[in-house]
Amino acid sequence: MSAQVVEFPRKEPSLAPILSLTATAMNSVNSVILDRMQSEIPLIPALAGHLISGGGKRMRPMLTLAGAELVGYGGTRHHRLAAAVEFIHTATLLHDDVVDGSETRRGKETANIVFGNPATVLVGDFLFSRAFELMVEDGSLKVLKILSGASAIIAQGEVDQLVAQRRIETSEERYLSIIGRKTAALFAAASRISAVVAECSEEEEEALDAYGRNLGIAFQLVDDAIDYDTGTAEMGKDKGDDFREGKMTLPVILAYARGDAEERLFWQDAIAGFRIEDEDLEHATRLIQRHDAIAATRERARHYAQRACDALSIFPENKARAAMVEAAQFAVSRGY
Amino acid sequence: MSAQVVEFPRKEPSLAPILSLTATAMNSVNSVILDRMQSEIPLIPALAGHLISGGGKRMRPMLTLAGAELVGYGGTRHHRLAAAVEFIHTATLLHDDVVDGSETRRGKETANIVFGNPATVLVGDFLFSRAFELMVEDGSLKVLKILSGASAIIAQGEVDQLVAQRRIETSEERYLSIIGRKTAALFAAASRISAVVAECSEEEEEALDAYGRNLGIAFQLVDDAIDYDTGTAEMGKDKGDDFREGKMTLPVILAYARGDAEERLFWQDAIAGFRIEDEDLEHATRLIQRHDAIAATRERARHYAQRACDALSIFPENKARAAMVEAAQFAVSRGY
Repeated sequence: MSAQVVEFPRKEPSLAPILSLTATAMNSVNSVILDRMQSEIPLIPALAGHLISGGGKRMRPMLTLAGAELVGYGGTRHHRLAAAVEFIHTATLLHDDVVDGSETRRGKETANIVFGNPATVLVGDFLFSRAFELMVEDGSLKVLKILSGASAIIAQGEVDQLVAQRRIETSEERYLSIIGRKTAALFAAASRISAVVAECSEEEEEALDAYGRNLGIAFQLVDDAIDYDTGTAEMGKDKGDDFREGKMTLPVILAYARGDAEERLFWQDAIAGFRIEDEDLEHATRLIQRHDAIAATRERARHYAQRACDALSIFPENKARAAMVEAAQFAVSRGY
Repeated sequence: MSAQVVEFPRKEPSLAPILSLTATAMNSVNSVILDRMQSEIPLIPALAGHLISGGGKRMRPMLTLAGAELVGYGGTRHHRLAAAVEFIHTATLLHDDVVDGSETRRGKETANIVFGNPATVLVGDFLFSRAFELMVEDGSLKVLKILSGASAIIAQGEVDQLVAQRRIETSEERYLSIIGRKTAALFAAASRISAVVAECSEEEEEALDAYGRNLGIAFQLVDDAIDYDTGTAEMGKDKGDDFREGKMTLPVILAYARGDAEERLFWQDAIAGFRIEDEDLEHATRLIQRHDAIAATRERARHYAQRACDALSIFPENKARAAMVEAAQFAVSRGY
């Protein structure tokens, strides 16, 4: 292991290298996904397909595939497991949209709007069960332990986020704990299992876990920044959703912490749900800009992305590692 | 194996023998349940405990425990697995109540009413994940395969029930397929895994699967009969719920099949949701009585309970077998 500074390149970071690295394997993963979301009940593939075919980036399975390339795994077990990871993620998204009453995702109507909450909850359950079936077929108890553990942690993070909703007193530490669970746990698990199927050392497993975990936190921080960033037009992200739902994200936490007494009164009312009109959102956005809270959130994200890249330093320099580093850089450059 | 007619006793069948048979082990199961529904997020045990401590009969884990007694299993692995079964069941109930918008269960307010739909969906997900963690700790891939398969089947049954809702043309065959999935699959799995941990023969596994599956169908049939049976006051069951929700259950299917043209028009309107007042429910109940649809439903239940009992005939006559037979008899005598 060498202490090594991974330099950020001058050119615009891109997902192209990691997409190219994983393209062939991702075709196999997509085949498994399409095959295993089927059911005799036609509503199930219709509803699942609405989200799964709806232009998701397949980021989490991509981590599994890229990790497998990084460690030189030559088998195919990771295809099924990457599909399982995507199913867990999809189940979570379906339930999230019900929980939040969201109306659009990735630029189209959510499944709960098209098919109703009841079917959306149940198809989420189905996909979650299918994920476990896929893991059981693979047969690794170690992978099962990692992914069932991650699933329990995700659910706890989601509940904690719900509890923190509309609570202006939520701290940055609490927020980081929430996103560490609801987002980063699955990123970490998806990345780690590539090392497990390749029978890598514990050290390599830990490194891939750390890469995924830090990338997940960075990714969520940027997502949360974009929700208040008027300068960007990230595809499929509905600006102001977090504000209207009273979700406590880092831009708000920082703007509140750095605000004066009058501003704090505004935030208390807004997050409590009493000021959610368009003009309130505009005011909130102005306050966030005034205190550089978007820039600060992005700076935090860069910190975690750097940690993700540095975690890979125990692996030899190769095309896979370079692609994974650039993916982390891309994650924090989104929406600029 | 001997072809054997299990005689129904003259005395009122009771759950007492199976409760007594499994009492000690059930204490251990309850300890696992209480221990593993904990979380750092206090809302999770509060919400889960609302349902779990709310007087459920623990029927499914009881099947695992009774099966273990039947085959003379001397270990403790089944305690953790029985808790996993109860967690899967609890997760399903929480999601069911959200899906149906139910307001009471077991004579008290549902979790979705007390804690809201969002938290109820997410805590269901948490319990489902915990169930898999418990199974992974046990470490049997065979058990994992049985229970992950059952979970996927349950979800499909629930979706199919949702699709059939408000559709008067639903056939008895379709209904049996739905309850075979949404209810009987977990009864079958809970019963079967006792044979797996005891390393029984395939024949014994199949017999315990058949016992659980047929008992599950019988149990659901009686539940559905009770919902229209004015002569009974089953604790915690809210009469007329199925009617108001337009759920197609066997009493309705039979009353519709046996009804004349005018009656069929009534059923079409009622199941479609246009006649759901108390007087409509009274009329529906009268039609069901007129065509002996409750008695016919109970008769179908007895058929499955008898099949459940007969499936046990490959096992030696002993206290456990007698208790399991009586439990099946009790299941179909409920509400008389």
